[in-house]
Amino acid sequence: MKENLKKYLVEFIGTYFLVFTVGSTALFGASGVIPAIAIGFILMAMVYAGGHISGGHYNPAVSFAAAMRGALPWRHWLPYSVAQVVGGVAAAFTVNYILGSEVYSSAADYSTAGVIIGEFLFTFALCHTVLLTATTREVRGNSYYGFAIGSTVLVGAFAVGGIICLGAFNPAVAISLGIMHAAFWKTVALTFIINILAAAAAAVTFKAVSYND
Amino acid sequence: MKENLKKYLVEFIGTYFLVFTVGSTALFGASGVIPAIAIGFILMAMVYAGGHISGGHYNPAVSFAAAMRGALPWRHWLPYSVAQVVGGVAAAFTVNYILGSEVYSSAADYSTAGVIIGEFLFTFALCHTVLLTATTREVRGNSYYGFAIGSTVLVGAFAVGGIICLGAFNPAVAISLGIMHAAFWKTVALTFIINILAAAAAAVTFKAVSYND
Amino acid sequence: MKENLKKYLVEFIGTYFLVFTVGSTALFGASGVIPAIAIGFILMAMVYAGGHISGGHYNPAVSFAAAMRGALPWRHWLPYSVAQVVGGVAAAFTVNYILGSEVYSSAADYSTAGVIIGEFLFTFALCHTVLLTATTREVRGNSYYGFAIGSTVLVGAFAVGGIICLGAFNPAVAISLGIMHAAFWKTVALTFIINILAAAAAAVTFKAVSYND
Amino acid sequence: MKENLKKYLVEFIGTYFLVFTVGSTALFGASGVIPAIAIGFILMAMVYAGGHISGGHYNPAVSFAAAMRGALPWRHWLPYSVAQVVGGVAAAFTVNYILGSEVYSSAADYSTAGVIIGEFLFTFALCHTVLLTATTREVRGNSYYGFAIGSTVLVGAFAVGGIICLGAFNPAVAISLGIMHAAFWKTVALTFIINILAAAAAAVTFKAVSYND
Repeated sequence: MKENLKKYLVEFIGTYFLVFTVGSTALFGASGVIPAIAIGFILMAMVYAGGHISGGHYNPAVSFAAAMRGALPWRHWLPYSVAQVVGGVAAAFTVNYILGSEVYSSAADYSTAGVIIGEFLFTFALCHTVLLTATTREVRGNSYYGFAIGSTVLVGAFAVGGIICLGAFNPAVAISLGIMHAAFWKTVALTFIINILAAAAAAVTFKAVSYND
Repeated sequence: MKENLKKYLVEFIGTYFLVFTVGSTALFGASGVIPAIAIGFILMAMVYAGGHISGGHYNPAVSFAAAMRGALPWRHWLPYSVAQVVGGVAAAFTVNYILGSEVYSSAADYSTAGVIIGEFLFTFALCHTVLLTATTREVRGNSYYGFAIGSTVLVGAFAVGGIICLGAFNPAVAISLGIMHAAFWKTVALTFIINILAAAAAAVTFKAVSYND
Repeated sequence: MKENLKKYLVEFIGTYFLVFTVGSTALFGASGVIPAIAIGFILMAMVYAGGHISGGHYNPAVSFAAAMRGALPWRHWLPYSVAQVVGGVAAAFTVNYILGSEVYSSAADYSTAGVIIGEFLFTFALCHTVLLTATTREVRGNSYYGFAIGSTVLVGAFAVGGIICLGAFNPAVAISLGIMHAAFWKTVALTFIINILAAAAAAVTFKAVSYND
Repeated sequence: MKENLKKYLVEFIGTYFLVFTVGSTALFGASGVIPAIAIGFILMAMVYAGGHISGGHYNPAVSFAAAMRGALPWRHWLPYSVAQVVGGVAAAFTVNYILGSEVYSSAADYSTAGVIIGEFLFTFALCHTVLLTATTREVRGNSYYGFAIGSTVLVGAFAVGGIICLGAFNPAVAISLGIMHAAFWKTVALTFIINILAAAAAAVTFKAVSYND
């Protein structure tokens, strides 16, 4: 397989499992602490599985931050994002199929301020952690990057997810939540924009705090 | 002890503790989040304990994927699987002894579609993670492989286990659930087949996405 | 950016997310096991993100222990502490803004003995773990230091936090809890003093138990 | 400080925090999943903190297994065990002081068979994991040993602790549970014996499965 296709396939698979976990734990069969823990741990596993092939982003905002930081060629951003969104949407349809009916009732209407604050903060924390643990020469070869990355999403899901915002921190997840009828499309659109802005802020911050790399 | 016997004994021990944890947390004294967390963490511990001796599979489906990928000689697959099933069955009898009576009531009747989807997805995720974190030269010597492997089972147990399928992702666990009267034998048989098919799919995917190894 | 400013900015960011997580999980939308797990995991993530830049302290008591041990120049202690406190206070105001009203009712009145014992023990455990895992030459380059450090705070939050004391183990967190109206200022002041004393005790212990470094 | 005293002090400190966590989470202020998670995570943290100084045993049974395997000189076993028991007893008195009264009611009367099976299995799993992850040359320098070791205790606490046995897997913890009035002394004595037997079994198994070391 062509090297680029390898990367896109890995991004497709990882995002598929991330979104399937979001949908299956948040929409059926689970409650309380389960979704946040499950989402954080599947991201950890998939980041470790695919990290050495594609970088293990599974998130167009993370890929955006990686591109701004110079860790991903810009020409890869769109195909990465397409692979991620297609993976997420495929998982959303799988969840819809299992649920057997459309569940409009689970979509909550968050305030604009809540979505902006919640999605910005933890998408920033996620991209900050990705850039500093997975794209920095001084810590190359470390074994903790996937754990740290998954932890930020686990914590964000606990801290703000479902409370003041979707807790997606990821445009591909936001779109998939729309397809699973767990989010209003206006919330998805705002989440998408805020995720990308937070990624850009994290990339700017990275350039300020990191040593010459 | 002969080198092969060392490997089989390690596989026996690890699968024993995996199945004992499944049985003791799911069938007595635990509920809610406990079984999934306990099962994921005992797998992490046993993978790290035995990884450098036998590979730390504890799962005929994982051994199947490893054999297809070329990380386990095919002649080892049957003895590995026997050691794993014998370890699991021994644990099942231990649990039955402690419980003191046979508990038919705990077996749930899952739909064929649910078993196929749930067992396929997370056995695939498990084998995908095993092959990419524990059998790939680029990441040799990493310290995260057991954590990533255990996480996929932890998440699978939360996402689909006991909801649409057994959540075994492992033929040895499935057979042991039958012996603990926690699964109908027809579900065990279907689970077994799907686990192996998912392992094969993960091995094919590995060959597509990995670099020349 | 000047190298020192890089460090202070990283300390600001990490403490911001630590305190935001404390406030958002303990004061809104969460209960039971969530605050302790979320606090421990955000600390793990932030320690890994910033460790190679600033040391990833996010805690004036940890910086004090690091300075006594010789891992942080004393002239850095005050600016580190200021950056940490400012980060925590900024997060506290963010939480207050989201909550939309001041919540005096959440402050509990702990006994002096409880605050002394609880804050001393786990600030000591935290600094003991930091000094031995993150500032010792024999284990340089390990991938577990952030996990170990976050774990001590996670456990302290479960063992004593909210039971016999605030469970801050961190003067910047204590001050921020005061601003979020989750602690009486007299408790904050006592916590601050005990945290520093425990840090000093850990540094003395480190010198006793470590090999020539 | 003399090198041996360094080791004993580190064992004292680690066992103190292990037992304090057992007592504080199991006897006051916590329930459900908290004790098992807290106990597992404090052990992880303390193993990482002290591992490079004393081995990070905090458990006379683990020290016994290490001595049988040749990783600890036998002349160290008794002082290690004394340091561990003294650390545990000091923590038990701290917990008793905080609780302010003696709590006889929390001691459960376990069956002899339950204590034998439960304590044997998970003390074996613990020592098996310690010997294979922390005393084996092939995996020297790994970053996962503390995580794997703590995980076995976390899982044992979920699987059998408080259900069919104390879930101590550690004579120092068992004695401390007696002092905290959380165990009958006859249970403590039986637990002590079984823990040592399981440690011996794990050491024998290690010699069978490990390569020439």
